[in-house]
Amino acid sequence: MAERQHGGSPTVGWIGLGIMGGPMCRHVINAGFDVITYARRPEATAPLAEAGARVASSVAELAAGSDLVATIVGMPSDVEQVLLGDDGVIANLRPGGTVVDLTTSEPALARRIAAAAGERGLGAVDAPVSGGQGGAERGTLSIMVGGDEAAVAAAEPVLRSFGETIVHQGGPGAGQHTKAANQILVAGAMIAMCESLLYASAAGLDPTRVLESVSRGAGSSAALTALAPKTIAADWTPGFYIEHFLKDLGIILAEARRSGLALPGVELAERLYRSVQRLGHGRSGTQALILALAEESGRSWP
Amino acid sequence: MAERQHGGSPTVGWIGLGIMGGPMCRHVINAGFDVITYARRPEATAPLAEAGARVASSVAELAAGSDLVATIVGMPSDVEQVLLGDDGVIANLRPGGTVVDLTTSEPALARRIAAAAGERGLGAVDAPVSGGQGGAERGTLSIMVGGDEAAVAAAEPVLRSFGETIVHQGGPGAGQHTKAANQILVAGAMIAMCESLLYASAAGLDPTRVLESVSRGAGSSAALTALAPKTIAADWTPGFYIEHFLKDLGIILAEARRSGLALPGVELAERLYRSVQRLGHGRSGTQALILALAEESGRSWP
Repeated sequence: MAERQHGGSPTVGWIGLGIMGGPMCRHVINAGFDVITYARRPEATAPLAEAGARVASSVAELAAGSDLVATIVGMPSDVEQVLLGDDGVIANLRPGGTVVDLTTSEPALARRIAAAAGERGLGAVDAPVSGGQGGAERGTLSIMVGGDEAAVAAAEPVLRSFGETIVHQGGPGAGQHTKAANQILVAGAMIAMCESLLYASAAGLDPTRVLESVSRGAGSSAALTALAPKTIAADWTPGFYIEHFLKDLGIILAEARRSGLALPGVELAERLYRSVQRLGHGRSGTQALILALAEESGRSWP
Repeated sequence: MAERQHGGSPTVGWIGLGIMGGPMCRHVINAGFDVITYARRPEATAPLAEAGARVASSVAELAAGSDLVATIVGMPSDVEQVLLGDDGVIANLRPGGTVVDLTTSEPALARRIAAAAGERGLGAVDAPVSGGQGGAERGTLSIMVGGDEAAVAAAEPVLRSFGETIVHQGGPGAGQHTKAANQILVAGAMIAMCESLLYASAAGLDPTRVLESVSRGAGSSAALTALAPKTIAADWTPGFYIEHFLKDLGIILAEARRSGLALPGVELAERLYRSVQRLGHGRSGTQALILALAEESGRSWP
């Protein structure tokens, strides 16, 4: 691998090339940053290499060659391994570097990462995103940022390359807590959208025509705009996997139990999403929720 | 009362001058229609009389002097009495006239009204609205229309004076069914908004700053934009009464039982809204829902 680039813009290490991470990394390259990437499946890095990224052969090599490392991986256990493992990012990034975890993960893990980073003279930022695949592709994500001022300032130029709304919410973990607040909104909107479409269909209405009415009124939402047409068409292509959303809901409910909060809407969402996962839709998009409600109603969809 | 105006635009009888009906009636006057109004409390008609409406001394007198009668009253029982009663609109409107019920009411009642109107040679339209007090004041409501083509065509010029999105959804009752689909969306959005704000606050975040993040992402909704700032400020001023929303949820759940539909989100909303009504908030705005969740969590709000 080439030496780390000195002078000019910092070198950004990027780990995570999924539905969200792929287009986000591309925006970082297009913004002019020197980018190194790594993936367990080498074929995942090919399109980014073509776009100008260098490819490292391990997480440790990537970290050693970077000024800032951004991660957007699946589960909190993946975050823990990639950032806190012996061959992980924090053990191998040089002092003064910054880690930016974009994964939706646990607030408590974000605080542990910040503490471990601090011990090695590194900055840490938790910066989960919202806005879906479309937002990632257009570079218009909402980024919810937690971390101390210096680390956030170091991360901001990179975040700008794929984020439109970037708000510093507080210390380590505050980004994850804000993302949890966001996912609570999404969970409620998804239940509401699916119940509404099921009701409209059972009442003999044309769901697409109903959308013309309800998407302009007090019931409108980003979820409705983005996913109701796919739901009506029974198109379960994932913009966001049900199994990832279940992870988010689990994090929220664990936090709620810890602080004694009643979140019956989130509990309902978790029950319904588990039910649609059991129907074999863990890797479908979140709109497949309607299949759980249809099943409980003894109906098929559409 | 003056004679019914002949030639030119039709005379519109207007019954219902509440939070929504008052500003909607004013738009009809401003659009140039000859308007007659009536209210049980005469003082309610004074501002409309000042704006140019004539005032009838009874529903029967209003109906006898009108070409089209629009109603927007509280409960289905009020609709039934005003439209179907012996001294009501349908018994007193001359053949060829049209009744337009803008109240959110029962689909089955809308079908009964259409049948009774048909027997007397009248047209009937169910046309509930969405968009809240703000939409009523700006004249930008979404109007969900049910009824046969001729009746809908007769109603449309009047609806245009306060509606921006007017969609004919089907025969009698289809407007009410569409409004039910709309209220299912609102119910889910309200639970989600309140749970999200409660979570954010319990996590030590600044809810107003959290709104900056989440109102641009996948969790954004009209309910969040309109009501989260009031909820944060513990301002329970009604844009829409909890007791009216409970009526809507009851209509939806009755329809769902009839057709065997599982709507667990709507059931949850009804349980929570009953709980906040028991706290004395029946005449507060729907955002006071957060008080039910705070109580279940053993917390105060804010």
